[in-house]
Amino acid sequence: MNELVQTELKKIFNGRFSTSESTRANYARGEDTYEPVLSQAVVFPETNEEVSKILKLCNENKIPVVPFGTGTSLEGNAVGNSNGITISLEKMNKVLSVNAEDFDCRVQANVTRKQLNEYLREDGVFFPIDPGADAAIGGMASTSASGTMAVKYGTMRTVISGLTVVLANGEIIKTGSRTKKSSAGYNLTNLFIGSEGTLGIITEVQVRLSPIPESIMSAVCYFPDLDSAVQTAQEVIQYGIPIARIEMLNKDQMEISIKYSKLENIKASPTLFFEFHGSESSNKEAIKLVEELSKNNGGGDFKWAVSLEERNKLWQARHDVYWSVKALGNNMKVYSTDVCVPISNLVECISWAEKEVKKHDLIAPMVGHVGDGNFHSIILFDPNDKEKQKKIRKYSDDLISKALELEGTITGEHGIGLQKKHYLLKEHPDNIPVMKSIKRSLDENNIMNPGKVFDLN
Amino acid sequence: MNELVQTELKKIFNGRFSTSESTRANYARGEDTYEPVLSQAVVFPETNEEVSKILKLCNENKIPVVPFGTGTSLEGNAVGNSNGITISLEKMNKVLSVNAEDFDCRVQANVTRKQLNEYLREDGVFFPIDPGADAAIGGMASTSASGTMAVKYGTMRTVISGLTVVLANGEIIKTGSRTKKSSAGYNLTNLFIGSEGTLGIITEVQVRLSPIPESIMSAVCYFPDLDSAVQTAQEVIQYGIPIARIEMLNKDQMEISIKYSKLENIKASPTLFFEFHGSESSNKEAIKLVEELSKNNGGGDFKWAVSLEERNKLWQARHDVYWSVKALGNNMKVYSTDVCVPISNLVECISWAEKEVKKHDLIAPMVGHVGDGNFHSIILFDPNDKEKQKKIRKYSDDLISKALELEGTITGEHGIGLQKKHYLLKEHPDNIPVMKSIKRSLDENNIMNPGKVFDLN
Ligand SMILES: Cc1cc2nc3c(=O)[nH]c(=O)nc-3n(C[C@H](O)[C@H](O)[C@H](O)COP(=O)(O)OP(=O)(O)OC[C@H]3O[C@@H](n4cnc5c(N)ncnc54)[C@H](O)[C@@H]3O)c2cc1C
Ligand SMILES: Cc1cc2nc3c(=O)[nH]c(=O)nc-3n(C[C@H](O)[C@H](O)[C@H](O)COP(=O)(O)OP(=O)(O)OC[C@H]3O[C@@H](n4cnc5c(N)ncnc54)[C@H](O)[C@@H]3O)c2cc1C
Repeated sequence: MNELVQTELKKIFNGRFSTSESTRANYARGEDTYEPVLSQAVVFPETNEEVSKILKLCNENKIPVVPFGTGTSLEGNAVGNSNGITISLEKMNKVLSVNAEDFDCRVQANVTRKQLNEYLREDGVFFPIDPGADAAIGGMASTSASGTMAVKYGTMRTVISGLTVVLANGEIIKTGSRTKKSSAGYNLTNLFIGSEGTLGIITEVQVRLSPIPESIMSAVCYFPDLDSAVQTAQEVIQYGIPIARIEMLNKDQMEISIKYSKLENIKASPTLFFEFHGSESSNKEAIKLVEELSKNNGGGDFKWAVSLEERNKLWQARHDVYWSVKALGNNMKVYSTDVCVPISNLVECISWAEKEVKKHDLIAPMVGHVGDGNFHSIILFDPNDKEKQKKIRKYSDDLISKALELEGTITGEHGIGLQKKHYLLKEHPDNIPVMKSIKRSLDENNIMNPGKVFDLN
Repeated sequence: MNELVQTELKKIFNGRFSTSESTRANYARGEDTYEPVLSQAVVFPETNEEVSKILKLCNENKIPVVPFGTGTSLEGNAVGNSNGITISLEKMNKVLSVNAEDFDCRVQANVTRKQLNEYLREDGVFFPIDPGADAAIGGMASTSASGTMAVKYGTMRTVISGLTVVLANGEIIKTGSRTKKSSAGYNLTNLFIGSEGTLGIITEVQVRLSPIPESIMSAVCYFPDLDSAVQTAQEVIQYGIPIARIEMLNKDQMEISIKYSKLENIKASPTLFFEFHGSESSNKEAIKLVEELSKNNGGGDFKWAVSLEERNKLWQARHDVYWSVKALGNNMKVYSTDVCVPISNLVECISWAEKEVKKHDLIAPMVGHVGDGNFHSIILFDPNDKEKQKKIRKYSDDLISKALELEGTITGEHGIGLQKKHYLLKEHPDNIPVMKSIKRSLDENNIMNPGKVFDLN
């Protein structure tokens, strides 16, 4: 970064512009396995106009820019740029408006999912996308995130109806609208969702909310083996039974979670976590059907989480699986796979994965948003053990190939970042030239998070 | 079109390439109010590769191309190009595969919505997007269409998970996948949806299907005035009551439909058509709530369409409102407005519209997908009556302004075409440069349906 730019940014942002090593180190990567890369500076804008000023300046001077939400991404999406600056959105964290009667609201990019739900507590509505981390809604938009409730409520693509985006050249645009549908020109909103900061910076998000269901019921069900658990999930979806959450934890993960989350009276068996959202009677109806399917596959009795407290504890344990694995070893790293396949191929894919994990002797418990056909092997490894890393790479490569063979995708929700660029070439070789054309047309100097998603040159 | 190109196309397509005036006249526009514009030829490809050959040739020779589905679009979207050729997709009408266990299928672009549902009849699944016309699924993708069931099942954006697209330069790409979700790079699928043939030709569509509900119940309810009908619809949505269809017809439209569709025992009052999809007991629960809300707003008793036949007749009448109005006059034209607003502003918008229609003394019955905040004034006019047309233009302009003031969109589902280009400038002035950049990057010679959606130069 040349000195003029630095002086200019210091002048505008004052204490909100930092070149200190400790600050830069704090924004050098996300929750990924990459070595930290320190950008030359970190800047903390508070308004759309400030973001615009930064981008204009960077664009004129061809300085790379890395947008940064809460830094929980897993694929190297937010790794710093040693020639560029990182823009942390953390000071843009205000809820701008709530229209409970239309089930929508508008937030600044770094309002987090929990913060929003806290804010909405009195309004009878909630924001249903819940990745394990308490991520920023702008960051979640940027990776096209989802969570345990996608099976009922969809993903970030489903719930976002508009955005404010600052383009590489500093122009500020407002896409979409507050309406339920629109055919007014190209769908720019969905182009920015999932673009991982490579096309512009999202500063505001127009979000669709959901009414808090009259009745919420959560249960746990054990299975004799993983296949029968996954088979049950598959059948629940195939019968079209209305369900809000259906999550799988394998035996290894259950053992780890029971310890880490201090779960009481819970068994270390392959398990499904269910949750039903509806009226009391519609839930009862759905539960009856799901119990029947579970029984037929050898599942045990449902164990109900009756109080709100029990329910929260259960889902917190589910959300904390990543941390529970990480806590197993000092100085160990964790890498999570993320394939997603059509539901009819899920049993085959997960059962294949479990065998491979054993074969390679990996510590890699499994957890899955099985209602969506998406699951993760959460692989613990010693970064100094090169042999093990080779095995992990082999497993990861083979899993990707298997998923593609089963008409799946290389990433259900974590995105591409640095980690999956070569896999994207496998899944969508013919799409990449189109993505590159679009990238070039909106960011001619390639300043927006360069080197992520694909290599431009 | 130069002679070489013509000779080449004739050589490849033989009888499936036509320059006859009668054929060209058949593909000179959609169901819009524009004067027909005859392209220089019409060609009927049967495979992706044939479409690719045409586009390659046209691109090399800078010949404009107009894709043509079933020609039911309403905004001049498919009007011919006197310097170009029209590509009719009608011979690409095969269902390619059905995976009922994953609720998905893949179709060629010109499979129509009714054809697909006929095909799926034995599979326990259906395709839920139902515009009034029996349009092509590729055409519906291109305008981002929706129908009476969007309130439960969403729009074309919701149900499409992948496409095969032939780009302007003839390259064939396959976007998306069969999975429920993916974060694998930019969302190209949704960029082509709603692009009205200006970015490429859609040749195949990967579609999500829905399970046929266990119980379907349809009813009609009369209201003393339009406001109370719309207020009821608004409340049904705001209470989050699960409903599959909720359509409004005003008094004028009811009078016309009763005659045209020979509806018996039906009253000419402002009316809501309801439909509930679910289990028998969940439907009963929903119906009870909706009946209560209706009563509170002065609605009468529900009149049930009990048999499948009655139900079909009811919805056919709803789908035929456009034709029922058109049938009112010989040599008259029909233009349908298409604004959509947030649900909390719907009563205000519709009630404003009804007054304006009276003020301008228009024949313009109203019908609405009120659960989505979307409604149409179906305006009948004599193309020779210039004075009337001025009034219609004034009404249409004012309605657009009103809808935008109410945070709405200029088009809920019909798209931009030729008709709404200047309105798009009003709704999304800041988005248009971005749309143009994307257009230029994917179609450098501007051969794809030029002059639609926006003017490039
Ligand atoms: C314990 C744990 C559990 C997780 N579980 C899930 C899960 O269930 N589902 C799931 O989908 N993900 C999950 N993740 C991954 C992560 O939470 C998501 O990827 C999330 O969307 C990242 O949001 P963030 O704000 O942390 O983004 P960051 O990590 O800060 O950034 C992510 C990417 O988006 C870009 N970006 C960030 N903000 C903006 C902006 N305002 N404008 C433009 N670009 C921006 C960055 O440049 C980067 O490319 C999990 C992560 C952890 C650590
Ligand atoms: C009676 C009636 C009722 C209607 N009701 C509704 C309704 O409820 N909801 C609704 O949304 N619409 C409705 N419409 C409008 C119309 O049915 C939709 O716009 C429909 O999506 C058009 O499909 P089509 O196949 O007829 O497309 P066409 O009219 O042939 O083309 C529409 C546009 O898409 C492009 N196109 C067509 N096929 C392709 C392709 N394969 N690849 C790329 N571009 C292509 C064309 O160039 C054009 O720009 C109605 C129309 C009528 C006449």
